[in-house]
Amino acid sequence: MSKKINIGIIGFGVVGSNTCLVLNRKKELFSRYTGIEYRIKKICDVDWKTEREWMPPEQLRTDNYSEIVNDPEIDMVVELIGKFQPAYEIIKKSLENGKAVVTANKFLLSKKLIELITLANENNTYLGFEASVAGAIPIIKGLRESFAGNRITSIIGILNGTTNFILSAMTRENKRFDDALLLARNLGYAENDPSLDISGADSAQKLAIISTYAFYHSITDDDFLIEGIDRIESEDIEFASELGYRIKLLAMAKRLDNLISLRVHPTLVPEGHMLSDVEDVYNAVYLEGDLFGRSLLYGEGAGGKAASSAVVADIIEIGKKISGRGHLPEIFTIESDIEIQPVERIETRYYLRFTAVDRPGVLASIARILGENKISIASVIQKKENPEHAVPIVMLTHRAVEKNVNNAIREIDKLSSVKNPTQKIRVED
Amino acid sequence: MSKKINIGIIGFGVVGSNTCLVLNRKKELFSRYTGIEYRIKKICDVDWKTEREWMPPEQLRTDNYSEIVNDPEIDMVVELIGKFQPAYEIIKKSLENGKAVVTANKFLLSKKLIELITLANENNTYLGFEASVAGAIPIIKGLRESFAGNRITSIIGILNGTTNFILSAMTRENKRFDDALLLARNLGYAENDPSLDISGADSAQKLAIISTYAFYHSITDDDFLIEGIDRIESEDIEFASELGYRIKLLAMAKRLDNLISLRVHPTLVPEGHMLSDVEDVYNAVYLEGDLFGRSLLYGEGAGGKAASSAVVADIIEIGKKISGRGHLPEIFTIESDIEIQPVERIETRYYLRFTAVDRPGVLASIARILGENKISIASVIQKKENPEHAVPIVMLTHRAVEKNVNNAIREIDKLSSVKNPTQKIRVED
Repeated sequence: MSKKINIGIIGFGVVGSNTCLVLNRKKELFSRYTGIEYRIKKICDVDWKTEREWMPPEQLRTDNYSEIVNDPEIDMVVELIGKFQPAYEIIKKSLENGKAVVTANKFLLSKKLIELITLANENNTYLGFEASVAGAIPIIKGLRESFAGNRITSIIGILNGTTNFILSAMTRENKRFDDALLLARNLGYAENDPSLDISGADSAQKLAIISTYAFYHSITDDDFLIEGIDRIESEDIEFASELGYRIKLLAMAKRLDNLISLRVHPTLVPEGHMLSDVEDVYNAVYLEGDLFGRSLLYGEGAGGKAASSAVVADIIEIGKKISGRGHLPEIFTIESDIEIQPVERIETRYYLRFTAVDRPGVLASIARILGENKISIASVIQKKENPEHAVPIVMLTHRAVEKNVNNAIREIDKLSSVKNPTQKIRVED
Repeated sequence: MSKKINIGIIGFGVVGSNTCLVLNRKKELFSRYTGIEYRIKKICDVDWKTEREWMPPEQLRTDNYSEIVNDPEIDMVVELIGKFQPAYEIIKKSLENGKAVVTANKFLLSKKLIELITLANENNTYLGFEASVAGAIPIIKGLRESFAGNRITSIIGILNGTTNFILSAMTRENKRFDDALLLARNLGYAENDPSLDISGADSAQKLAIISTYAFYHSITDDDFLIEGIDRIESEDIEFASELGYRIKLLAMAKRLDNLISLRVHPTLVPEGHMLSDVEDVYNAVYLEGDLFGRSLLYGEGAGGKAASSAVVADIIEIGKKISGRGHLPEIFTIESDIEIQPVERIETRYYLRFTAVDRPGVLASIARILGENKISIASVIQKKENPEHAVPIVMLTHRAVEKNVNNAIREIDKLSSVKNPTQKIRVED
């Protein structure tokens, strides 16, 4: 029953090797869900010396991408080398040869997106590029499909993890720009030459891709106002904070009637705004549309795993489209080995509010019963003193088991000093 | 060139009429993007007396759904009446007749999702139900497609707008539960009988649908621990706040190995957690997966427009799939009437940091130049007094035009009392 999709991977770095790992490990799963066998036929890279977590057998390796682009048996090319050439050539040739293409190449797509989509359409094939922007955040599919009926009026993105990490470190730890950059480098969040990130160019490339789809217009990063974060001083972060703002590198596209404003620059965002809480290397995209109103998509913007999540999703979905069957079955097969946890086995932290008379020994009795039921107390509030009446005693527990908590409450509520049924609310940290 | 998809709409309430409005108003646009004419052939409702924003011509109306379900010319049935019967019968019959179905029926799907997907697959057709959960938030497509390569380990959702509004009002305005519920009613956020919302049942239905897809297991709302918010007292909100938490009605599904824990209950969420900032009638879904890491999708969870956004997206996408052509072209046609705004015409608020000697009249000169350039000042910080040296003067402006701001800065930086180039950072409120 199974149809085969032969895949050629070009570029075997972090994202490439992660993608191969997932395709191999979950091969059986994907095949069950889609009826398709996703098979890696060839992997191209110029460096076969550096060890990766998984190394393909010899016969899968090549250093010549023509062996993939021109192989009539290969159905799908996954381009993960980045930059302009030879990626542009690889994608064009692959599409012209009728192959589907999946790419994470933001640099190339920020210049050539419409040309390549048109080429894919002309050759009755598909171009997937979810991984080119904001890692696994489904912003491309969101605009292409989920929000397709909308007129998009506003896009505000935190699209670069390196600069967001630097600004977070400057804000939280009062670091100077240079020190925050050094920290980002030491943690592997900044490249040796971080100028594309810091200058805002990387964010502009990503926003060009998003806004091309949001506004159905040919938008490249040449259309942008672009300012970087290197001129932000600690002083500015402090003054901003005093005024109730945080400084973020925002990539913005706003539509007023038919006029689009495109810009990337450090920006004061009010505390409490959802974008002001996007910290460290996380990305987020805030959108406004005439039907859905306001929406925010948030997630990991980079890293081999997050990018491979998007690459694999494109591979699965496009694989279904090109598999040649009339009907694309839902990804759905029941997993029989899954079990639903009984409620009594829930384990979490609890907020407990007891209502007890304010007499010596009451707190001790409650604590004793909790202890006997293996519930340990993280903090207690007992403010009001009133020996005449019942007062609230509030406790936050450490992790405990629902069954034990229920038993303890049953016992506590029987104490003569406890006047009302105990309030129990679970905590999610 | 255009292929026609004939659509039958069953249920002409708020979502139904909004969906028709969008399909009509954007007909030409969708046709240009997909090559498909999405045509409403019949609309069924039992009430044709209540006026809606748009009323269909007589010949489109019926009060007998068989005229849609059994019409061989109808390709797609949009079921928007909700509840169990006759919705179940309508969807089953439509799928058996080979029609695609789009529905927003969370109640029915929380019981019958797998049966109906299987039925759709058996009949080589499609079931779209993005609108059944969290309005326009693309959580269904996210799990079905964008995160398809992942093993999902955690889902935490705020899935009910009514209860989130009530808890927000109790927190922000110190209202008691009953008063907050009354406010929700007066604002149209709560139904006359809000018991499904308040009891947590509505959230459980939605989470059953999401987690069925996340875990590929047959999950119905019978599997849940469900607690409502009616027992939350103002006191609990205050104590929680004192402990650094807010109370939210969370719908949670967590996977530990093959064990799934499913629950809906009021929960303490630490302030600063992204879910604690989801206010009023907004919804959000937080996800964890082995590849994408952590992700959050946020947006309007209800309302005719948001739901119609999801319904229309399903209609467009499924329409492409059933249009009978081998290739599904990308939704992409360049909009020629769009214009990119020149940078100088940007209008926003500005943070300006001047570095000037601390002498009388300096502030006045700066303010005068700003005024001459039509820039008005919202607030000023000038803390350090030091007549010997230059000190920072920080201003937040009201909305101003980039060109004017640049002109003003040029002039100000020429003042002999201004010692360093002025720092300019834009503000996004």
